[in-house]
Amino acid sequence: MVIVGVMGPGEGATDRDCAFAYELGCAIAREGWVLLTGGRAAGVMNAATRGAKEAGGLTIGVLPSHDKSEMSPFVDIPIVTGMGEARNYVNVLSSDLVFACGMGAGTASEVALAIKSGRHVVLLGAANTTADFFGSLARQRLHTANDVAQAMEMARTLLQ
Amino acid sequence: MVIVGVMGPGEGATDRDCAFAYELGCAIAREGWVLLTGGRAAGVMNAATRGAKEAGGLTIGVLPSHDKSEMSPFVDIPIVTGMGEARNYVNVLSSDLVFACGMGAGTASEVALAIKSGRHVVLLGAANTTADFFGSLARQRLHTANDVAQAMEMARTLLQ
Amino acid sequence: MVIVGVMGPGEGATDRDCAFAYELGCAIAREGWVLLTGGRAAGVMNAATRGAKEAGGLTIGVLPSHDKSEMSPFVDIPIVTGMGEARNYVNVLSSDLVFACGMGAGTASEVALAIKSGRHVVLLGAANTTADFFGSLARQRLHTANDVAQAMEMARTLLQ
Amino acid sequence: MVIVGVMGPGEGATDRDCAFAYELGCAIAREGWVLLTGGRAAGVMNAATRGAKEAGGLTIGVLPSHDKSEMSPFVDIPIVTGMGEARNYVNVLSSDLVFACGMGAGTASEVALAIKSGRHVVLLGAANTTADFFGSLARQRLHTANDVAQAMEMARTLLQ
Repeated sequence: MVIVGVMGPGEGATDRDCAFAYELGCAIAREGWVLLTGGRAAGVMNAATRGAKEAGGLTIGVLPSHDKSEMSPFVDIPIVTGMGEARNYVNVLSSDLVFACGMGAGTASEVALAIKSGRHVVLLGAANTTADFFGSLARQRLHTANDVAQAMEMARTLLQ
Repeated sequence: MVIVGVMGPGEGATDRDCAFAYELGCAIAREGWVLLTGGRAAGVMNAATRGAKEAGGLTIGVLPSHDKSEMSPFVDIPIVTGMGEARNYVNVLSSDLVFACGMGAGTASEVALAIKSGRHVVLLGAANTTADFFGSLARQRLHTANDVAQAMEMARTLLQ
Repeated sequence: MVIVGVMGPGEGATDRDCAFAYELGCAIAREGWVLLTGGRAAGVMNAATRGAKEAGGLTIGVLPSHDKSEMSPFVDIPIVTGMGEARNYVNVLSSDLVFACGMGAGTASEVALAIKSGRHVVLLGAANTTADFFGSLARQRLHTANDVAQAMEMARTLLQ
Repeated sequence: MVIVGVMGPGEGATDRDCAFAYELGCAIAREGWVLLTGGRAAGVMNAATRGAKEAGGLTIGVLPSHDKSEMSPFVDIPIVTGMGEARNYVNVLSSDLVFACGMGAGTASEVALAIKSGRHVVLLGAANTTADFFGSLARQRLHTANDVAQAMEMARTLLQ
């Protein structure tokens, strides 16, 4: 199976971030890929997971807490780490490719760890500041897309 | 989904440990439960995963390494932690119930962490020394079975 | 510097466990070794750290939580992991040798991980059940002592 | 004790990054603070640790590997995590304040996790791209300095 991560803010996500994440979750499921997120019932994690689930996909949630109390109801496979933000490393190592919708400190750590671990990252609708910074860290593995169709096209090519 | 862990030695597993693990993997899949192991292509992890896979089940492997080079070919969902034996904590937190087949230092850490985290543990074919020790730590959550049918019967009751 | 770990129960520690731990902490500091514990203000961790501190030693506390709210006041160097019981792995990897005073599920996981990681372990005042079990996992690296003087003598020999 | 982290690239560090890190290590030790780094014998980690050690300070190295083979010879207190880049979370949680000299994917993850965990971060000699990006994530906890004297002055104020 191909496992694809969607990272993005929880509480700090914008409506646009969540709309992108939901649509991306749907597209990932339709592609036959498995979705992996940070698993919480908040923001981008929840929206992507709901999208994948509604489109008939399989969803993994790698939770920071030591139980399932904060889990998105759309997660099929909860991985309970009890490791707080250290689980961000598990998120990216377990993903064959990482999408990021929106940006915050937690998401930034995931994009950075993904680059460090040799993963390709596709930023969806990113601000120039964000694209410039991560582009300066890894020009070859850092990609930017303006919509979900373009992001999925990139991912298909990169995962071949 | 119900996720059930099967823990046991890798390289140090006996033929009996692996036979139990294989049979347990089959039974878990037939029950409709998802199997979780430490994910490596060795000993109890590999035998249980092969059993579950051959019986049509879904299998999760929580790997200690930072890539999939040691992964059992029967794992559907690899969770790549890069955290060495610290991933043992993820194994037990992510399992609704833990079975142990055979015993070694890594398996002992998993049984201990499972008890610490409030999980029920079923030891399958354990030596008296092992059953006595873990029984002294958690009499109420520590169970022993002599065969797979008995172990599964206990698990069904405990997971109700 | 030589770093020596003292592991043991927090809330579940007996008076005897804590007396051994305090005396051991004193002896470790007098030997010129650095003490490492799980860092919380409870049971064996706190008693050993107080002993080492009162005898003029340096103390490390590897905390499970993401802040210092539960920290023993006798810890000099807090390592804040935010990883719950996964920090038990850090405890033993960072110790050149591990002592255990008393026994509980968390302590059992540390002794098991220490053996798995090739560390020598000295059990102080252990029940036969405990000594028999861990002895069956690692006869060569598992040692038992009845008092602090004997435990320290073993440690000196093993660390040469 | 006040524990202050210095983060920065290993193999990818520039001469300027290392010169800043060395000088910063010296200043931290003279201030009476304890230095914490990622502990490896490379780049910014090694330079800062050497500086602190030569100025008579105490140095902590939180290692990613499961042994001390890559450790800087100037580390006093090795914390061996065996957790790869997941140890970056331990680095920042254990630091009362984080300095960053130079930038790379690993360092970016540490700055991001530090911001996420409520730590103040002082970037030393950072490119505009870097300062703009992290400033957009945490304007109040993100500070930039052009030299070590200015960075230390900021740290003194922030740690009061």
